[in-house]
Amino acid sequence: PVGGCVEGWAHCTLRGGGGLFEYILLYKDRMMFQIEQATKQCSKISLTEPWDPLDIPQNATFEDEYSIGGPQEQITVQEWSDRKSARSYETWIGIYTAKDCYPVQETFTKNYSVILSTRFFDIQLGIKDPSVFIPPSTCQTAWAERMSEDCSW
Amino acid sequence: PVGGCVEGWAHCTLRGGGGLFEYILLYKDRMMFQIEQATKQCSKISLTEPWDPLDIPQNATFEDEYSIGGPQEQITVQEWSDRKSARSYETWIGIYTAKDCYPVQETFTKNYSVILSTRFFDIQLGIKDPSVFIPPSTCQTAWAERMSEDCSW
Repeated sequence: PVGGCVEGWAHCTLRGGGGLFEYILLYKDRMMFQIEQATKQCSKISLTEPWDPLDIPQNATFEDEYSIGGPQEQITVQEWSDRKSARSYETWIGIYTAKDCYPVQETFTKNYSVILSTRFFDIQLGIKDPSVFIPPSTCQTAWAERMSEDCSW
Repeated sequence: PVGGCVEGWAHCTLRGGGGLFEYILLYKDRMMFQIEQATKQCSKISLTEPWDPLDIPQNATFEDEYSIGGPQEQITVQEWSDRKSARSYETWIGIYTAKDCYPVQETFTKNYSVILSTRFFDIQLGIKDPSVFIPPSTCQTAWAERMSEDCSW
């Protein structure tokens, strides 16, 4: 997949146009740190979006259950959406494994020309190395402005 | 998924704007039958595209290997593309299971505004009911024109 989010949902390394950026997203503190990997230059940015638990919303519509892969090599997944029968088409489709609800894919239709699709991979339970959420010392005197040429969230 | 292709790659039922159509694609005969489900009205159309074996092309570039799902509920897949290092970006990405190469997802970038993505599901080995490939009797006096309001291939 594009990008390469590693070690949990709130710690990411992404290559932008200008270089390699690390992102630390602390939702409890509503704060995001953007760290340029070569220089360790750090920007501190407010998080405005709430934490997405990546679960199936209570009012979601069940669409389908099917298997991915093939004999001896398959998982059963379920598709859920925000479609309301005879009322509105879906703007969101989420695919989860049938047993433990691991996210597989999420697709948002923003408008006629923009569809945002996220695929999830290499999911592990727990956080192996919690230190990845500690910003480097350069973030103590962080800029309040976002560095350019990064990928947008 | 959208549509609902069943019982193999060459027999499909799709809902178009006007009604429910069944398609039988016989690649050896380079022929496609389009059957309107309610009336059994049948159109016979030449198949111009060659059969797609849905395998990994010989000259494909290996992109990544990762797991989908989570602990106790996962498959390992590989991503391949037609990217040529330092020469061209990919226009095709294919995802297959690591062991037996079952297709999982295929994405074609046609141009800046059109991306065609196919997800594969409920794959079974063999053809349980070969009779689905026998066109109904109405196809013996078939029209040579395609019926409108169907999904395009």
